[in-house]
Amino acid sequence: MDLRTLIRDVVDFPKEGIVFKDITTVLQNPEGLKASIDQIQEKLSGVDFDYIIGPESRGFIFGVPVAYNMGKGFLPVRKAGKLPYETKSKEYSLEYGTATIEMHIDAIKPGDKVVIIDDLLATGGTSRAMVELIEELGGEVVKLIYLIELDFLNGRDKLKGYNVEAIIHE
Amino acid sequence: MDLRTLIRDVVDFPKEGIVFKDITTVLQNPEGLKASIDQIQEKLSGVDFDYIIGPESRGFIFGVPVAYNMGKGFLPVRKAGKLPYETKSKEYSLEYGTATIEMHIDAIKPGDKVVIIDDLLATGGTSRAMVELIEELGGEVVKLIYLIELDFLNGRDKLKGYNVEAIIHE
Repeated sequence: MDLRTLIRDVVDFPKEGIVFKDITTVLQNPEGLKASIDQIQEKLSGVDFDYIIGPESRGFIFGVPVAYNMGKGFLPVRKAGKLPYETKSKEYSLEYGTATIEMHIDAIKPGDKVVIIDDLLATGGTSRAMVELIEELGGEVVKLIYLIELDFLNGRDKLKGYNVEAIIHE
Repeated sequence: MDLRTLIRDVVDFPKEGIVFKDITTVLQNPEGLKASIDQIQEKLSGVDFDYIIGPESRGFIFGVPVAYNMGKGFLPVRKAGKLPYETKSKEYSLEYGTATIEMHIDAIKPGDKVVIIDDLLATGGTSRAMVELIEELGGEVVKLIYLIELDFLNGRDKLKGYNVEAIIHE
């Protein structure tokens, strides 16, 4: 199934000049939901890993079903102040200002192999911060998989040396 | 599997006097993740419905795998300003102030039967707002399923006349 046909382009969201890739039209289609999860999961065939990691909140959408299907645990990365137990944080730069992501300090044990799954690779800022946070906790990022990669934003440049894959390139 | 043993109580989060039910310890355990999704899904055996609806962001965790497993679509409910296309909103009261949730106006067609899945039924404010939003769009809420219900907060009182189920009662 070509998932591209189910993605809706929304012009000028979240601000003028940006064409937002709306994936809700994929999710509401039963075949689209199934194909998007299955196609991400196929990228993990033969990959040795312990956990799926997904960032709040759209990373939860694809990460959890893949973890379920493959018999693995799921570790959420959340925005500052959302995780209840003791956390480790990572601040990173946005176009204007900064953002902070967090993981529970006991989510990863040193040596754990993790896979990051998210809906979109844009500039790569959040992904880079996640990789650094995971490595500071002792984990190893064996792969990063995205439903959509916006090639013109060169997010891969921030992830050099890592195994990065995307289902759809725009 | 008794999922209760995997839930972590975090005292004084998000503020003093509250004991927060931390489900990340369920999600990171492969058997816990599987059992939580399977036990929610069992509540839908024989239920006729079109879509699963889950609220941002923990509602995505359990709603999407159940939709995937049962061959249905998933419709997200999000906080104001997050959905890119035209939306319908619903404002509701919190302990202090208000919150607003949104759905895309074309997510539900009149007559669609939907199931709401979320991690926690507390005071029921968000769930009540979701039900009203869905009904204003022409949908019918055939069931609401929660991983955890905090019985002492009487959230069910806001959902009288609806079919409400929870896996764990606290």
